[in-house]
Amino acid sequence: MTVSEKVELIKFDEEKYLSDGRVVVEQRQEAEELASCIHEQGYSNIFLLGIGGTEFEFAHFEYLVSRISDIDIYSINAADVNIMRPKKLNKDSLVITASSSGDTVEIVEATKWMIEEGIRVVAFTNKKGQLGKIAQYVIDAPVETGYCEHSYVLQSFFIYKLMNLRGNFDSYDKFADQLEKYIFADLLDIKKKFESDGLKIASEFYDAEYTIFTGSGALWGETLLFAMCMLEEMQWIRCRPVNAAQFFHGTLELIQAKVPVFIVKGEDEFRKQDNRVEEFCKKINCQYAVFDASKYAVRIDNEFRKFVIPMITTACLTGRLSRHYEVYTKHNLQYRRYYRQFEY
Amino acid sequence: MTVSEKVELIKFDEEKYLSDGRVVVEQRQEAEELASCIHEQGYSNIFLLGIGGTEFEFAHFEYLVSRISDIDIYSINAADVNIMRPKKLNKDSLVITASSSGDTVEIVEATKWMIEEGIRVVAFTNKKGQLGKIAQYVIDAPVETGYCEHSYVLQSFFIYKLMNLRGNFDSYDKFADQLEKYIFADLLDIKKKFESDGLKIASEFYDAEYTIFTGSGALWGETLLFAMCMLEEMQWIRCRPVNAAQFFHGTLELIQAKVPVFIVKGEDEFRKQDNRVEEFCKKINCQYAVFDASKYAVRIDNEFRKFVIPMITTACLTGRLSRHYEVYTKHNLQYRRYYRQFEY
Repeated sequence: MTVSEKVELIKFDEEKYLSDGRVVVEQRQEAEELASCIHEQGYSNIFLLGIGGTEFEFAHFEYLVSRISDIDIYSINAADVNIMRPKKLNKDSLVITASSSGDTVEIVEATKWMIEEGIRVVAFTNKKGQLGKIAQYVIDAPVETGYCEHSYVLQSFFIYKLMNLRGNFDSYDKFADQLEKYIFADLLDIKKKFESDGLKIASEFYDAEYTIFTGSGALWGETLLFAMCMLEEMQWIRCRPVNAAQFFHGTLELIQAKVPVFIVKGEDEFRKQDNRVEEFCKKINCQYAVFDASKYAVRIDNEFRKFVIPMITTACLTGRLSRHYEVYTKHNLQYRRYYRQFEY
Repeated sequence: MTVSEKVELIKFDEEKYLSDGRVVVEQRQEAEELASCIHEQGYSNIFLLGIGGTEFEFAHFEYLVSRISDIDIYSINAADVNIMRPKKLNKDSLVITASSSGDTVEIVEATKWMIEEGIRVVAFTNKKGQLGKIAQYVIDAPVETGYCEHSYVLQSFFIYKLMNLRGNFDSYDKFADQLEKYIFADLLDIKKKFESDGLKIASEFYDAEYTIFTGSGALWGETLLFAMCMLEEMQWIRCRPVNAAQFFHGTLELIQAKVPVFIVKGEDEFRKQDNRVEEFCKKINCQYAVFDASKYAVRIDNEFRKFVIPMITTACLTGRLSRHYEVYTKHNLQYRRYYRQFEY
């Protein structure tokens, strides 16, 4: 597969995207060395500390690490953890967090008390921001565009290397080599393949009165990320994200004209649940669309494909579908009514 | 406090409510004996198995047990667990589940394989239903009305007795005695106190285009229960339940005319987050309403109040506010478009 299709992506700078990809890949060694250092020190469990977008972005790591390792890994919301500390979070824990601005209030607050208590925090953030200044360990890839998949790849070099060192991911080096070589070119290609689908979905969904989003397994975080951070926050579009299992226990009753369903389908065990939602939508003949990650090929071995599925999905949804919505709504993705507009 | 106010509750049978309360209380000894039996056997962790309503109803037990005990307790969705078994669920585990009909498909399926694998399942259900027939242990209170608080009280006699036996709840007997003596009369009184507030909220909210619901801590489950099971499923009202922490990371942008916020406020550490949402709503001068559990007194000692807060809340929200919505929407709570109307 090559970037063969002569599709020009709207609102997108291909060169910057690929050069940012190179910036990320250049940090591989540093990320892996840090993993070795942490592994040497030892750790008893892992906490993924996020809030909003970062919380949802970390969700797939929680799911995937749990699939390959016995290590206890927990996703924690920074606002919650500032109120009530998880019982198992202590000096033997490893906390991983991220903030592109570096000044996410709740994360900075959490990191401060964690450090005071001798808990190790690895932050994916810029070195000059507040978070970058206080965290004991910082991994920084100074990208210009900073798409989610840039973060996922960089975080993969650290998190999956940790798994490799634990003996839970023996073929990690091969995986990381393939990521390094192919991932950004392949994701660019996938974005192009998705372009016409994305435009079509946006044209049909942008003026819905209320849109139900379902997802599951490794992609439930992506579903929340797209619905909450792209559509609610950046497009002021009324969404109802609900996981594919819970969909059948309440939310399904809302489907009617002008209330479509958007189904995010992955490739893991939970695909069964996604399919059940799709079958239901077919049966009642309602308006729905499916984003199916399995439609998109990469030049990375199949045994590693599960780790790449969230990258494919975010490259299409947060990266592209949001822009297509913007085309139709004429609502600038940068506009905010309230978020960070004043103190609250 | 007595049932002093001469308020007549609409769509409500006081006598049946109280007699069902007596039916529940009569099962106390049986529930406690089962707790002793399970305690004797020993168990390494607890799984609360639910789906939809039952999942949300169990949520406060997960939260509260975690506050008083070191035992690992997990809330699990039956559909999810049928696909992917939690690592820590094994023969040493104790599974607690519930289904009033006894035929919730996902729960019956989960219980079947759990039993085959020698995992103990305690089911709060009727003895004649599918679930009642297969679970090793059944606790049944043959109530006529079956409000959520009836379940919570019955489950409290089992779950908190377990905690007592572990040495995590020394004053349990006093708590249970007070529950037995006062809870249903007090909750009836609280329903009456809430009646005019409930009618007012429903009159103002019933025709909103989209309603945002926030909750946190011990009441996040109640928030989901009311929004999903009462309003989405039974009233076909467009809801956006979002926890008070995540509210600030996307959903807040949707507030505008005809999009009010409903804030469920508890008394635990997370009240800070609920207050933050309320302050925000005040600041932007939007339409909002607050259900504040702290407004309602009970004749149960303050040290036990945290265990009663979810009962107060469900007595008002699922029990009463839903009926008030029904008054205004003229939409019968029994109507379903899709749910259990055909196979899917």
